Amino acid sequence: MSHWEEFYATHLPPTDFEDNRILLKEFCERHKKAGERIVLITSGGTTVPLEHNTVRFVDNFSAGTRGAASAEYFLEHGYVVIFMHRLKSLEPFTRHFSGQKFMDMLELHDQGPNTSITVKPDSVDVLAPVLASYKHAQEGGRVLYVTFTTVSDYFWLLRAACECLAIFETKALLFLAAAVSDFYVPSNEMPTHKIQSGAGAPTIQLQLVPKLLAPLVNLWVPHAFVVSFKLETDESILIVKARDSLNKYKHKLVIGNMLQTRRQKVVFVTKDTSFEVSLTREQMLNGMEIEDSIVTNVITNHTEFLKTHQY
Amino acid sequence: MSHWEEFYATHLPPTDFEDNRILLKEFCERHKKAGERIVLITSGGTTVPLEHNTVRFVDNFSAGTRGAASAEYFLEHGYVVIFMHRLKSLEPFTRHFSGQKFMDMLELHDQGPNTSITVKPDSVDVLAPVLASYKHAQEGGRVLYVTFTTVSDYFWLLRAACECLAIFETKALLFLAAAVSDFYVPSNEMPTHKIQSGAGAPTIQLQLVPKLLAPLVNLWVPHAFVVSFKLETDESILIVKARDSLNKYKHKLVIGNMLQTRRQKVVFVTKDTSFEVSLTREQMLNGMEIEDSIVTNVITNHTEFLKTHQY
Repeated sequence: MSHWEEFYATHLPPTDFEDNRILLKEFCERHKKAGERIVLITSGGTTVPLEHNTVRFVDNFSAGTRGAASAEYFLEHGYVVIFMHRLKSLEPFTRHFSGQKFMDMLELHDQGPNTSITVKPDSVDVLAPVLASYKHAQEGGRVLYVTFTTVSDYFWLLRAACECLAIFETKALLFLAAAVSDFYVPSNEMPTHKIQSGAGAPTIQLQLVPKLLAPLVNLWVPHAFVVSFKLETDESILIVKARDSLNKYKHKLVIGNMLQTRRQKVVFVTKDTSFEVSLTREQMLNGMEIEDSIVTNVITNHTEFLKTHQY
Repeated sequence: MSHWEEFYATHLPPTDFEDNRILLKEFCERHKKAGERIVLITSGGTTVPLEHNTVRFVDNFSAGTRGAASAEYFLEHGYVVIFMHRLKSLEPFTRHFSGQKFMDMLELHDQGPNTSITVKPDSVDVLAPVLASYKHAQEGGRVLYVTFTTVSDYFWLLRAACECLAIFETKALLFLAAAVSDFYVPSNEMPTHKIQSGAGAPTIQLQLVPKLLAPLVNLWVPHAFVVSFKLETDESILIVKARDSLNKYKHKLVIGNMLQTRRQKVVFVTKDTSFEVSLTREQMLNGMEIEDSIVTNVITNHTEFLKTHQY
């Protein structure tokens, strides 16, 4: 048994797995019939529980900005979107407004049984376009939200999504922006209860999480256009690691980014080329987001690919 | 140097520390003049970074429901509130509505330059009372929000808050509901860059985080009414551990709760007594929250204490 098969064999699916599988299947079949292009976006970090009754876990840094912003741009370009994200990470549209920002935009007109609530006129300008895009996506059933928390939830959902996406063949784009844990604590080495501090400081022995790109590219969605991300904090190894990944898994594109500069620039690495996508100082001051450029460039690549790989 | 002094000596304050200190000082001085009772609520989990350029960290489970709900009930009972919470954990009032729930409540009336947005009539009933309480707290300046992420941010903020709270003497209540990490990775043993998976699976050697209750009770707010929480997953040790904590730190009250049943019952442990506070099945079905009972009971205890410890 390969490493990834063993992982599935030793980790149970999440409790809402069957419900999500039905949603994914229905969503894919409906849009396949309509002839749409589809993108699966994974977003946010995954956790690795340290105890069965989980109080503590190891987490990966990711607010989910890249995935949530990219979802909006893919929708704008006519793709339908499966937004597979970490519970509580940022979501498209709502990401622009925190809970307090929402409350502060509202005006209460207290008139007993005729009480009404309106958005303050000066907030309408900001909220209206976002709300219109949100409603368009919701009402057209153009986006499906599914959530994970642990790395094992992510494994189960990703495979299920791929199984449904396979019918799109080359028209499926996978935009794997989630920050997946590299390490985990095997189920049989995990304590049942909260680790007690009285027993002194513990040592946590981690194991490597299997890489899913291999079965994903070779078995699950062999015709799809697959894009993965590489995040590093040390610039000197970024392109080398991106190229290594591409050579190993044979997918289409790796987008490399540095933790410190990820909002200004990324590097697109394909089998034969590498080029930087970045925002100018002026674009940043105008509030442009790098995800706008990333998505435009990815779609150009996908369109090129479709021309040469259409059945 | 004691363990906690050493921790401050080896961890820098967060970048927004001075700003928060000024806010805390202004808030406390203003309300002290007005003769208010004040509660400091800490809420949400803390993180322990595993790398200086943080990609990975160990986290403690806590959505922040208990702290956020309790803040609402303390405000309702006339306390002013410092809500010191983990960034992105739940906040009072906004906790009732996720981002999508907010969007779904809104109706867009697209009329060009006269576009308006209103809350749908059937959502007004739910939103209006929450919005009214939120506005009352905001407009009266009755709640101050300050945030932390890492355990060391929490350390710095908590001490600063206590230094400002001390002027309230017995009228200050500390409601320490945050789930603070017990373990951390010392700064000098932390790698600078993201741990590389190519080097094999790492072992993480953790150290014990010093307990702040000792200096807090003895030095920082010696006259205040201090309530701490104890969360366990193993019921058999809960009361014993709560009592141990009380004997060790000499504060007023420990509220013990089990991870699995924390929404239905808790146990109040004082120097001489212990009693359960719980919701009946009917109360739960009616949507009552256990924080309502917890806060009422804590305030009764605080009021009793004030009678015998007034200067």
